[in-house]
Amino acid sequence: MRALFVGRFQPLHLGHIKAILEISKKYEVIVVVGSAQESYTVKNPFTAGERAEMLINEKNFKGLNLNVIPVSDINNHAIWVKYIISLLPKFDIVWTQNPLTKILFEKEKFKVAAQEIYTNEYGKIYSGTDVRNEISNRHEDVWKNMVSADTYKFIKMIGGDERLINLTSLTPGYF
Amino acid sequence: MRALFVGRFQPLHLGHIKAILEISKKYEVIVVVGSAQESYTVKNPFTAGERAEMLINEKNFKGLNLNVIPVSDINNHAIWVKYIISLLPKFDIVWTQNPLTKILFEKEKFKVAAQEIYTNEYGKIYSGTDVRNEISNRHEDVWKNMVSADTYKFIKMIGGDERLINLTSLTPGYF
Amino acid sequence: MRALFVGRFQPLHLGHIKAILEISKKYEVIVVVGSAQESYTVKNPFTAGERAEMLINEKNFKGLNLNVIPVSDINNHAIWVKYIISLLPKFDIVWTQNPLTKILFEKEKFKVAAQEIYTNEYGKIYSGTDVRNEISNRHEDVWKNMVSADTYKFIKMIGGDERLINLTSLTPGYF
Amino acid sequence: MRALFVGRFQPLHLGHIKAILEISKKYEVIVVVGSAQESYTVKNPFTAGERAEMLINEKNFKGLNLNVIPVSDINNHAIWVKYIISLLPKFDIVWTQNPLTKILFEKEKFKVAAQEIYTNEYGKIYSGTDVRNEISNRHEDVWKNMVSADTYKFIKMIGGDERLINLTSLTPGYF
Amino acid sequence: MRALFVGRFQPLHLGHIKAILEISKKYEVIVVVGSAQESYTVKNPFTAGERAEMLINEKNFKGLNLNVIPVSDINNHAIWVKYIISLLPKFDIVWTQNPLTKILFEKEKFKVAAQEIYTNEYGKIYSGTDVRNEISNRHEDVWKNMVSADTYKFIKMIGGDERLINLTSLTPGYF
Amino acid sequence: MRALFVGRFQPLHLGHIKAILEISKKYEVIVVVGSAQESYTVKNPFTAGERAEMLINEKNFKGLNLNVIPVSDINNHAIWVKYIISLLPKFDIVWTQNPLTKILFEKEKFKVAAQEIYTNEYGKIYSGTDVRNEISNRHEDVWKNMVSADTYKFIKMIGGDERLINLTSLTPGYF
Repeated sequence: MRALFVGRFQPLHLGHIKAILEISKKYEVIVVVGSAQESYTVKNPFTAGERAEMLINEKNFKGLNLNVIPVSDINNHAIWVKYIISLLPKFDIVWTQNPLTKILFEKEKFKVAAQEIYTNEYGKIYSGTDVRNEISNRHEDVWKNMVSADTYKFIKMIGGDERLINLTSLTPGYF
Repeated sequence: MRALFVGRFQPLHLGHIKAILEISKKYEVIVVVGSAQESYTVKNPFTAGERAEMLINEKNFKGLNLNVIPVSDINNHAIWVKYIISLLPKFDIVWTQNPLTKILFEKEKFKVAAQEIYTNEYGKIYSGTDVRNEISNRHEDVWKNMVSADTYKFIKMIGGDERLINLTSLTPGYF
Repeated sequence: MRALFVGRFQPLHLGHIKAILEISKKYEVIVVVGSAQESYTVKNPFTAGERAEMLINEKNFKGLNLNVIPVSDINNHAIWVKYIISLLPKFDIVWTQNPLTKILFEKEKFKVAAQEIYTNEYGKIYSGTDVRNEISNRHEDVWKNMVSADTYKFIKMIGGDERLINLTSLTPGYF
Repeated sequence: MRALFVGRFQPLHLGHIKAILEISKKYEVIVVVGSAQESYTVKNPFTAGERAEMLINEKNFKGLNLNVIPVSDINNHAIWVKYIISLLPKFDIVWTQNPLTKILFEKEKFKVAAQEIYTNEYGKIYSGTDVRNEISNRHEDVWKNMVSADTYKFIKMIGGDERLINLTSLTPGYF
Repeated sequence: MRALFVGRFQPLHLGHIKAILEISKKYEVIVVVGSAQESYTVKNPFTAGERAEMLINEKNFKGLNLNVIPVSDINNHAIWVKYIISLLPKFDIVWTQNPLTKILFEKEKFKVAAQEIYTNEYGKIYSGTDVRNEISNRHEDVWKNMVSADTYKFIKMIGGDERLINLTSLTPGYF
Repeated sequence: MRALFVGRFQPLHLGHIKAILEISKKYEVIVVVGSAQESYTVKNPFTAGERAEMLINEKNFKGLNLNVIPVSDINNHAIWVKYIISLLPKFDIVWTQNPLTKILFEKEKFKVAAQEIYTNEYGKIYSGTDVRNEISNRHEDVWKNMVSADTYKFIKMIGGDERLINLTSLTPGYF
């Protein structure tokens, strides 16, 4: 049985990793890196290639039967699922926490499941928005613990934290 | 004489119907279903096909000389009117309440007219935004009286009210 | 019951007219003007707007329950039918002589029928390719009898025959 | 040595002119009119053609070695600089005040410089946003002194001030 | 070390399989399914999803460190490699037999290698064009031996041979 | 008075240069580098940037009032001229030898003129197709005399002749 796991991975965080590990126990997993065309914005700082690399290099996933596929948006909700089907190998179930993704797949009669919501030891939910905020606020001690060691190292190596800090400081102006 | 009536019809409401009936007395009417590529959003919950169906099935329009044409946005205002001309049969006048549509057609020397603003028995203006809000708020008694019997039945049949309620509840988050 | 009739109408010819009249006896007909983005080429000399006008003004269709809708190509066969569905009101059957259109709609479980092949009094099949060839060859006596009186008048009025003759004479070269 | 000067020029104002004059002392300048596809909005009221005309007709630039090139957005930040390179003649340095433009060019190892911030006699910075606001507010005496005599005359001639005032007054509504 | 293997896989044949097995001995392999937007044509009969499935299900690849990624064409050769880079994890070498792919990657300073040309026991080169021709000509005994057992079964299961035969018989005509 | 000179400049040759020099005597010239998105093909070997560079660096044009603007195709003939107008400063006349360009501009009431056909001392017409053929055939002595000294040097410097020879030798095959 094959499952689709749909996310934006801006960046890959511990919630994603725990969910994918859990789903992999029962399914071969196709990981869709959504909004692949987006990068260098506050909401989407990393390129699809960088996000794919976080997933492919992740030591926690060693030995799993994962396949990572970046998919660009097409901005036409009525045909999006059909577009996904045309690009990906067959799948039996879709895992997502995104309500629109859920609505669109269910309309096409797919089974949709929501992964468990994972929290850290203080009960705080892992969330991409939070990771990006902590990076923007230069709270390295905080965001470092929201991602894996591999992702932390990768973000530092490509200067992803400085990139996001710069993007956050963009102010409309003279241009 | 042929008139263009440009709207988004999210959904078709009594104001649209009264306006089209009025214009039809003097003109053969081409009804442009605008932003055809949009659907499954809070502002544009219905697909172009669903909106075209509301118009084509409307009993109030039986016997009228209407032609319904969905047109996708091209996001280049400078050539939009030329694009419309390339897709549609010739027309002599444009009816719209949208100020940008008016500016763009007038720039190309078209005659642009604004339909009367129709109100219900309590003096409330019929407006697509209001219909969507009432649907989102589960005020079925209210929005039912803002649309025709055919549109009401159609929206219920396709689960359009539940769809919009779900879309409204979308919250940014884990994804 | 509603039928889709899919054609390019470059230009509308007597074969199309006979077919649509026949289908209209049993169905409400949505006429799709395909390849709407194409014009001013040898294969597609007329704009979608001009083609829609041929259909809407056609006297043979007076009183019929037709709706004419131009649809641009999306060049992705795997999602084309879904795209058509998203734009058009519901339909129960598709009439087409185009084998690819047939394959794609049947894949999505639609019923597809082929109209009768209509011929003139000499047994010659009405075909868009032939009409365009006769126009290019300045055989006005010939092509005039392959289209309706309305279409003939319209093509002459917009200079469509001269346009096609010019397009045919385009030679690769200095540019 | 050739420099790229990247701006939106909505509209060309005295800050742009002073900067280009300064840069021209040392460089042959390619002026990129960015977001070329945008027009008839509050943020981008003028077409790329109108903006190119402001630059090309500007008397202050007479005798300079300028080349003006409109470039549309591609909405994929990761490949935008490569796209620019594919369209433009070689250049040695990029002048911009836009932080994202700076980030993207520096990522590709280009030298990026920021022009001086020019102010008027009261110390007020010249800014496109301000010019547009003053036009919207019908402060003709004010915005007239923020642009050159040529640009002022051109905006009046094409009715650009009335256009922007109309666009600003667009209210969401019946449509 | 990571290698890119770029192909269209219309369909996956024994030459591809032998090449990927060989390359996998030294590299982690990213398999790019090119022209992902193409399907249901004589040259590109299979959807990207179907082609990805051939690769992912292939028993010969069990245990390999493969990642399969469909990539649509962008029809702008000057930025294509940059586009590929923005979508994929980092790679150290590109394997391809396509001369244009080679030119474009080498222009961007990538190392490009050509896989060995594999032949069957009669010395005939494995080629996608040949497989498609044999399918079109209903030589099932022949093409069956040009692909793996998995691919053969898959093509039969989805009716891919009948699809290609139908597509080949498409004749221009009435439409 | 401003003239548009529309060409593809694959590559800039002596016929183009003589024509632009002639037109410049009476007009300020906007040189449109057409099909800007095309490159690395047999018909369009050079990028728009390279073609713009040939024009901007050409010594024969020193002192002329030229502005070079690359314009990508939009593949919708019905709106192409409007698109051009939206991007370029106002112009009074169009110079072109391309018959379709002529038809489309004349439809929009522009004055269109054809430059003289220039020939070399043996009466041979300068033509882009011929230059590309001579490059492909390694007749350097021949094509060298069909372009200016600057263009010759530039093509050699970027390896443009070897690029075109490689592109010409592309054979369909294994890929």
